[in-house]
Amino acid sequence: MKASKIKKTIKVTFLPFETCVEVPQGISILEAVQKSGLPLKTSCGGQGTCGDCVVRILSGTYRKKSSAALSDRLVSQGYALACQTTIKSDLTLQLPQFQEVPIKSAIDSRFFQKDRLSGYYEIDPPLKKIDLKLSPPSLEDNTSDLKKLERELGKKMTGNHLHYEYSVLKKLAHTVRQSQREISIALFKSREQTAIIDVFSKSERKGIYGIACDIGTSTVVLHLVDLQSGEILSSASSFNQQIKGGEDIISRINYSQKAGGLQELHDLIGGTINRLIEKTAVTVGVSSSEIYYASVSGNTTMTHLFLNLEPRFIREEPYVPTLNQVPFVLARDVGLNINSEARITCAPAVGSYVGGDITAGLLCTPILRDSDRNSLFIDVGTNGELVLGNKDWLLTCACSAGPAFEGGGIKCGMPASPGAIEGVKIHDIGQLEYKVIDSSKPKGLCGSGLVDLLAELFIHGYIDRNGKFDEIKTKGMVVDTEEGKGFIIEGSLKSFWGKDLVITERDISHLIRSKGAVYSACSVLLKNSGLDYDKIEAFYIAGGFGQRLNIENAVRIGLLPDVDRQKFHYLGNSSLLGAYLILLTDKNRDFVNRIADKMTYLELNTEPSYMNEYTGALFLPHTEMDLFPSVKKLFSSKA
Amino acid sequence: MKASKIKKTIKVTFLPFETCVEVPQGISILEAVQKSGLPLKTSCGGQGTCGDCVVRILSGTYRKKSSAALSDRLVSQGYALACQTTIKSDLTLQLPQFQEVPIKSAIDSRFFQKDRLSGYYEIDPPLKKIDLKLSPPSLEDNTSDLKKLERELGKKMTGNHLHYEYSVLKKLAHTVRQSQREISIALFKSREQTAIIDVFSKSERKGIYGIACDIGTSTVVLHLVDLQSGEILSSASSFNQQIKGGEDIISRINYSQKAGGLQELHDLIGGTINRLIEKTAVTVGVSSSEIYYASVSGNTTMTHLFLNLEPRFIREEPYVPTLNQVPFVLARDVGLNINSEARITCAPAVGSYVGGDITAGLLCTPILRDSDRNSLFIDVGTNGELVLGNKDWLLTCACSAGPAFEGGGIKCGMPASPGAIEGVKIHDIGQLEYKVIDSSKPKGLCGSGLVDLLAELFIHGYIDRNGKFDEIKTKGMVVDTEEGKGFIIEGSLKSFWGKDLVITERDISHLIRSKGAVYSACSVLLKNSGLDYDKIEAFYIAGGFGQRLNIENAVRIGLLPDVDRQKFHYLGNSSLLGAYLILLTDKNRDFVNRIADKMTYLELNTEPSYMNEYTGALFLPHTEMDLFPSVKKLFSSKA
Repeated sequence: MKASKIKKTIKVTFLPFETCVEVPQGISILEAVQKSGLPLKTSCGGQGTCGDCVVRILSGTYRKKSSAALSDRLVSQGYALACQTTIKSDLTLQLPQFQEVPIKSAIDSRFFQKDRLSGYYEIDPPLKKIDLKLSPPSLEDNTSDLKKLERELGKKMTGNHLHYEYSVLKKLAHTVRQSQREISIALFKSREQTAIIDVFSKSERKGIYGIACDIGTSTVVLHLVDLQSGEILSSASSFNQQIKGGEDIISRINYSQKAGGLQELHDLIGGTINRLIEKTAVTVGVSSSEIYYASVSGNTTMTHLFLNLEPRFIREEPYVPTLNQVPFVLARDVGLNINSEARITCAPAVGSYVGGDITAGLLCTPILRDSDRNSLFIDVGTNGELVLGNKDWLLTCACSAGPAFEGGGIKCGMPASPGAIEGVKIHDIGQLEYKVIDSSKPKGLCGSGLVDLLAELFIHGYIDRNGKFDEIKTKGMVVDTEEGKGFIIEGSLKSFWGKDLVITERDISHLIRSKGAVYSACSVLLKNSGLDYDKIEAFYIAGGFGQRLNIENAVRIGLLPDVDRQKFHYLGNSSLLGAYLILLTDKNRDFVNRIADKMTYLELNTEPSYMNEYTGALFLPHTEMDLFPSVKKLFSSKA
Repeated sequence: MKASKIKKTIKVTFLPFETCVEVPQGISILEAVQKSGLPLKTSCGGQGTCGDCVVRILSGTYRKKSSAALSDRLVSQGYALACQTTIKSDLTLQLPQFQEVPIKSAIDSRFFQKDRLSGYYEIDPPLKKIDLKLSPPSLEDNTSDLKKLERELGKKMTGNHLHYEYSVLKKLAHTVRQSQREISIALFKSREQTAIIDVFSKSERKGIYGIACDIGTSTVVLHLVDLQSGEILSSASSFNQQIKGGEDIISRINYSQKAGGLQELHDLIGGTINRLIEKTAVTVGVSSSEIYYASVSGNTTMTHLFLNLEPRFIREEPYVPTLNQVPFVLARDVGLNINSEARITCAPAVGSYVGGDITAGLLCTPILRDSDRNSLFIDVGTNGELVLGNKDWLLTCACSAGPAFEGGGIKCGMPASPGAIEGVKIHDIGQLEYKVIDSSKPKGLCGSGLVDLLAELFIHGYIDRNGKFDEIKTKGMVVDTEEGKGFIIEGSLKSFWGKDLVITERDISHLIRSKGAVYSACSVLLKNSGLDYDKIEAFYIAGGFGQRLNIENAVRIGLLPDVDRQKFHYLGNSSLLGAYLILLTDKNRDFVNRIADKMTYLELNTEPSYMNEYTGALFLPHTEMDLFPSVKKLFSSKA
């Protein structure tokens, strides 16, 4: 008998997803995380020096090899370095990026200006509750229950061919009798189908509810909506549990090709959404069986994975999705824990790389209604997607921007959640001032903070147009890190993690490549439509920057073009708001489906000018300073 | 420790249903059958004298207490008296009434005369297979798979709003690629819905099939149909496994009120049909997943139980079924083992006591198309149902006829299956001649044989107008039985069971009450419509009599009115033929639904004249001999 065979097996549970792995006793937490498939940053390769792999242990026993990189305060709160901690018993822990749920709401009043919406803000969802009073039966009129129901319904609506869910037939006889013939039905009426999907006693006073859900590659946000008033009753967001299968779309598609991989990713996103549904429903005392309709938006890959459809051909040339426009599916088909007959609609994609998150987002702009004004919609994310045009024509493209502006791949980057620096200002005397979301001690920087930081460093000469540190100017402000020199934003004493918050040249390079990809995509899109920036009358910016975005700074770094600042409108999470608008009325669903069908997709990879444009955009703000006259003027006034 | 506690438990399995019961060792087979709930006749109360409870043991060991009532030939074939046999080990056995499957087919050419059909004989089922060739994708045309499918389909049909089953979306991407873009779809197109319910590779050369099924209270018959040619590929029939829950509708409804009773009855009928589906499909090499459509007919209770719907209110005043017209349901909703997305249609009922078997049956007559000619449709069964009228009006009623003409409740009665005497003739010299179905030795009499026997006994004076034996005339032809005197049809030496085949006065009384119920219902129906028999130009007779029915004899006993014999048409199983016609084209489905909706139901229980009419009909042929002039003439010529 070998000794290794009798080693005890330990269960490690990761919150908030309750992902579990079984590992042998005595291995490090880092090894356990790696086995789980969940992501955990480490810059030093497990040497205990970078301090990136900090986790929070909530229960269980463990042994610290060293705690050099962690303050006593953090250690006392259960924080530990994963690479320097060995497991002694069953553990429950939280990875750093999952400690806070990002703030990503579409109901922020600033983003919800009805006059700005392209979609109709009208409360006329396809799912309605209708009360019916059936006449009592007699020997003279012993009409069947179903016929009586149809007769009464016929008085309230002009009927097409009614479809009945089997479950309605099943419970009809008893519901009619138990309710003393005062019943309510849940009627789903769309162009495709008129169906009775539930019947219940009127006296139950059941409500009818819907959900609007934005499935982001990283984050999922959900509203629970009263379908009778249109009111958003509660909201919740969470990381997309699919993170286990990789952080970006390509990794997820690759993961789905493993045996059982697609089903697993489908179950993970289903689990994430179900958790949010439960959370929102419990908050306001709604039963999940009262949720009859769901509107979902996400990129093409997320939509395929949500629907459990093969995503492989999205990334294989010639990039053919199974579907762009999505027929209604049933909650039970995709494993959502709401009424099993609930209908689900997904915002339509235009193609493999312009998905339902974009078409839904367009509903939050007046683009689709303005035939005279040309507008440009820009969604900055790991994939940047752009839409240019007006009511009569729409041209769209996608570019690989990388996750930098969502805080991804940046040493101290993080989503816009409590502890994130969301704004930065460097005063002329060199003092750096920042604003933290809901916390006194900063944990990192979210997108809007990074935009500000990059612009401020550039404008004040701490970095040059290549994004390299000015040695003289940054003297004493820079430290060495595993990833090269880092400009200190906050020192170890005042930062949450007890270590310096820095931005490295490598981070800056990521940010420049991201902004360059977006800006050059804009340029190619404009050239292909024969327009220049002056002809664009409005710019709608969406993305995971956070709650606010300093447009001036976004222009200064060359992310956005140097035009009249009044033309810019920051939308926040337009995908979620679009999903909500689609939920509210079928007019919006029809509208966005028609529009998606008409949109022309421009493939940048086969566009010869794109690489040139991109190369030119890899400077601050751009190789051609003349494209950014306000920045040029700023520098000449400083000089 | 009590001895009874260590008694071994034995498993007894009843074929063909594989119903199992666990019983203690040493009890009699009769006790085991009683525990199973399956029916088994016994006239002597388990004394071993009547010989009714004969079963056939196929495997296992047992001990015979006595075998007086059984011949050595039968004993050597495994037959045993259930009351006289104790169980020693696990047993498999067959009850007498389940040894032969009844012959009950609608494809007998005599019953299938197209010119007689009211329904259209047209091969245009709502379920069609359509081949589509999708164009190859390219970077210039990377339209989604679904859109390509829609485009090609659009060339072949003018599209409404298409509905997709989720399973189609799920397998689309791989089917398109594996088939080299040559796919076939199963399209269901009815007025209610146009839906793609399957997609597969064209090269699979999968067929599309349907089933037509008549669910009788006692017997279930099924055709497997090629939906492309309309051809009936194979047929099968079996007893309705629900027999466990009682032999008639009322017993079944009562059984359904027990805890779990409805589900059990639903599962039993599902099991019966699934067995027939498997049998027919295997015979012709069809996969059950290729069966996409089913048309079912049955009385209102059978339809409810098949659909797993509460049948209770059918028999409680004011007799309100959950539904009469039945929306489409899916195979998976009702547990049929065919393609899980298959659509199922049920023939519509008129009310609690006139069901889909009758409306489907009407499609096999020209009643629905003849506006000038009045016709009368008579379905003789445990419940007799009648429909009178023409294209412009239809009046219907139901009466409790009892199962006598199906062989039920008659000492030597049996369904029309091998071994049944289906025809009887008594020659003037007193010699009785009979015809047996597919067997040399008779086992009993089916409906047509009973009609003949009753008529012959009556005409030749062996019984009087009350159905009592003429003592003088029957001298030496009558034996004593547990149930009184019995007229010997065949002696023990020549009968299959090795015991006398007899008809008792009690049997004759049952038959007279049955025919009286039907005839008096006819009379009341006619009176209510102000017509007399002369005004009826055609009589369509359906029912479980067997393959043929001697109309002359049916008139002589007063079951059918004494009118021109040319007016009578025996239809056999019109319910099954109707289900087949509904399967073939939606025109028939629409037609029969519209008709059912217009039919007027006459409740005999509240009809004052019915009891008078019934009492008058309890003679041979009737109290008023003048109503049967041909019979009167026969007797006066004999006198």
